[in-house]
Amino acid sequence: MNQTIENLMNHVSVRDFKDQAISSEAKSNLIAAAQSGSTSEFVQAFSIIEITDPKLRSELSDITISSPHVKKADTFYVFVADLHRQATMLEKHHQNLDSLKNMESLLVATIDTAIAAENMAVAAESMDLGICFIGSIRNNIEQVAKLLNLPELTVPLFGMTIGVPNHKNQHKPRMPKQNQVATNSYDDQSFTDLSQYDQTVHDYYAARETNASDTNWTEKNLAIFKQIRRPEVGPFLKKQGFNLD
Amino acid sequence: MNQTIENLMNHVSVRDFKDQAISSEAKSNLIAAAQSGSTSEFVQAFSIIEITDPKLRSELSDITISSPHVKKADTFYVFVADLHRQATMLEKHHQNLDSLKNMESLLVATIDTAIAAENMAVAAESMDLGICFIGSIRNNIEQVAKLLNLPELTVPLFGMTIGVPNHKNQHKPRMPKQNQVATNSYDDQSFTDLSQYDQTVHDYYAARETNASDTNWTEKNLAIFKQIRRPEVGPFLKKQGFNLD
Repeated sequence: MNQTIENLMNHVSVRDFKDQAISSEAKSNLIAAAQSGSTSEFVQAFSIIEITDPKLRSELSDITISSPHVKKADTFYVFVADLHRQATMLEKHHQNLDSLKNMESLLVATIDTAIAAENMAVAAESMDLGICFIGSIRNNIEQVAKLLNLPELTVPLFGMTIGVPNHKNQHKPRMPKQNQVATNSYDDQSFTDLSQYDQTVHDYYAARETNASDTNWTEKNLAIFKQIRRPEVGPFLKKQGFNLD
Repeated sequence: MNQTIENLMNHVSVRDFKDQAISSEAKSNLIAAAQSGSTSEFVQAFSIIEITDPKLRSELSDITISSPHVKKADTFYVFVADLHRQATMLEKHHQNLDSLKNMESLLVATIDTAIAAENMAVAAESMDLGICFIGSIRNNIEQVAKLLNLPELTVPLFGMTIGVPNHKNQHKPRMPKQNQVATNSYDDQSFTDLSQYDQTVHDYYAARETNASDTNWTEKNLAIFKQIRRPEVGPFLKKQGFNLD
């Protein structure tokens, strides 16, 4: 196993950073890595906004569930799914924007953005930096869009905090292969037989150094999905110009 | 710059593979890398289906725009955004599935899946393998779902071909940083001033060893988005149980 794969397998989200700056060279590498990923038909449908203004960082942090560490991390990027460049081109050439507005285009932009972000995460971890995806900017996605002056056909999907790790949790055990990987057909029976994995996750949380708890994967998911989450996201997407059709 | 970042920056999609098998150890690493990525609140909302059956591979290949290379690549995975495990749990606990059906949950599953796939791509390239995302399985997304027996609340987002590269194109020049990265605010003017980048892309295509052409980035995008693409994706998502609200 090479170093890259070892790093991928040891990934943990880091929420506790040292008060230490990331060099501008390292930041250039993070950006270049994000820009170099696969992109559907080369459309590069994403943008990255670095948040350096303390007031803006504080306002964005307060929207998330991870406010203290979003405030403290040396570097914070917001990743934006972005079809606005294409909209500008099409308008300049007197074409309508219908092709940008359907679910296919929204999926393309979402996938492009996540690929870019994961490349940045991999680059960061290869330099011994720690990262955390901050999906909870979607707690108030409309306000985030307003604070960042986002135009039509853009979506702030998530943030990413990056810094020098102070403390790292253990790697969380992922599903056994038989729960997530199959050959030639979806394997309903195997994918939903989670008793072994529930035990593994139970043991992980019971033994965890910080925030130990008595739970398992099923219980965690039931708690997460017991109510409708972020019902404003759909209406916000419509407001941004996506038809969701 | 370390080896991982160098590899990320040198990424190219590979569509021409040697007739050479990937070892089972390498495949285990690819899967483990995909499973180890960041995941929103640990929901791990994706599945991976390897296509080894020649008839099935051929049927799936014919749906894509890259049929010959999808047929020829040693390894072909389909990545599925997947909330079916959570649906099964919720049903077992007599809860309704509304929380899985809205746009927020679809975004979560799409992002989780793309992160996993990019981790696999990075792992593959670190072993000198070549990869190509195959978004064009969405040319007939309903048929792909049928062929793979996908249940409710799952979406076959894209495939990935992996093999030993026979020929690699040059790395395509990405947008200059000022077109894609900004500080504290979306930078509409800078992001849509693409004249310099159009020239760069023009020069890249003019000088390309294979399939040289006289085009630029704006022209490529205008051609891609001159008509509505894959209008069946939205209705398919509804059929799979997503409300798109």
